[in-house]
Amino acid sequence: MQPNLIQHIKKYIELNDEQTQLVLANIKPISIKKKSYLLEEGQICSSLYFVEKGCLRFFFINEKGTEQITQFAIENWWISDYMSFDTQSPSQFYIQAIENTVVYVFDYHNQEKVFSQLPQLERYFRLILLKAYSAAQMRIKYLFDFSKEESYQHFASRFPEFVQRIPQYMLASHLNLTPEYLSEIRKKTD
Amino acid sequence: MQPNLIQHIKKYIELNDEQTQLVLANIKPISIKKKSYLLEEGQICSSLYFVEKGCLRFFFINEKGTEQITQFAIENWWISDYMSFDTQSPSQFYIQAIENTVVYVFDYHNQEKVFSQLPQLERYFRLILLKAYSAAQMRIKYLFDFSKEESYQHFASRFPEFVQRIPQYMLASHLNLTPEYLSEIRKKTD
Repeated sequence: MQPNLIQHIKKYIELNDEQTQLVLANIKPISIKKKSYLLEEGQICSSLYFVEKGCLRFFFINEKGTEQITQFAIENWWISDYMSFDTQSPSQFYIQAIENTVVYVFDYHNQEKVFSQLPQLERYFRLILLKAYSAAQMRIKYLFDFSKEESYQHFASRFPEFVQRIPQYMLASHLNLTPEYLSEIRKKTD
Repeated sequence: MQPNLIQHIKKYIELNDEQTQLVLANIKPISIKKKSYLLEEGQICSSLYFVEKGCLRFFFINEKGTEQITQFAIENWWISDYMSFDTQSPSQFYIQAIENTVVYVFDYHNQEKVFSQLPQLERYFRLILLKAYSAAQMRIKYLFDFSKEESYQHFASRFPEFVQRIPQYMLASHLNLTPEYLSEIRKKTD
């Protein structure tokens, strides 16, 4: 069985065996323990991360000192602080494993070499970023538009696997609810 | 003088004269009058739009029947409903000119032909989408994090040309403020 990473890339572009080996020689897996960090505030985000197995959360610490989660990533999702990655400037975010996790790491300093050897990866990442940005445009709409209850219902219907897998207090943080209020909504609607 | 579109593309990739002509043969300008629409709710978004000259707003109509602006675009910005464009499904948004505007139109049904003739455009759009998505990740953070006053101050310092150019009630809508409250903040801080 090929890694999820390769299967995912092959949904968007063709890769022969030699090209597959080239990807795997340059985008390599690492295992990280639950609760360890891929990125912390103030660091420069060095890589794009593909979740092969496990689960990550993406959060910042707000003025009140509270962790505010803005994204999760499970299998087959790419995640990064793209601003910090693109501009190689200090990040305002944390990326932390919430399960034991395996990620494939696409390093900033390696990317131009990889793109020149495999130009079709430019297409793959164009399509991945198109999907990520289109989801973000909708997310911004929902942040303006949804009541707290609608936010939960939308998230639960769109990402049922997350609701099962993620601790309730993290889900509450992502939806900007108190855990108590989320619990009330779930009693009413689940 | 080359169009802004060509100058913008050349910031990211090389284009010789023949390639420039190929871009201009496939991504063509149209002029639209102030208040006319490039996209309305329920339509399938057919194109990516590059603002050569002028100004657009991107908005939806919320449950209360109020227009809620989530983005603006001026010279050198690409704008589209990327979800509707990518999935060719009905849009939840409107794109409207707020000045007489010239946009270059990259049509959905033309894109594969153009990318096959000019593969380096995949790189250009990968980089454009990387920047758009990285800005959206930050925007989502700010929507969680900023007070109303901070939202205005951040917008005004990051996009001073918009504050001059856009009617105050539209700026208020984008910041999710009442026009009266925005006016108060501006008296205090400008």
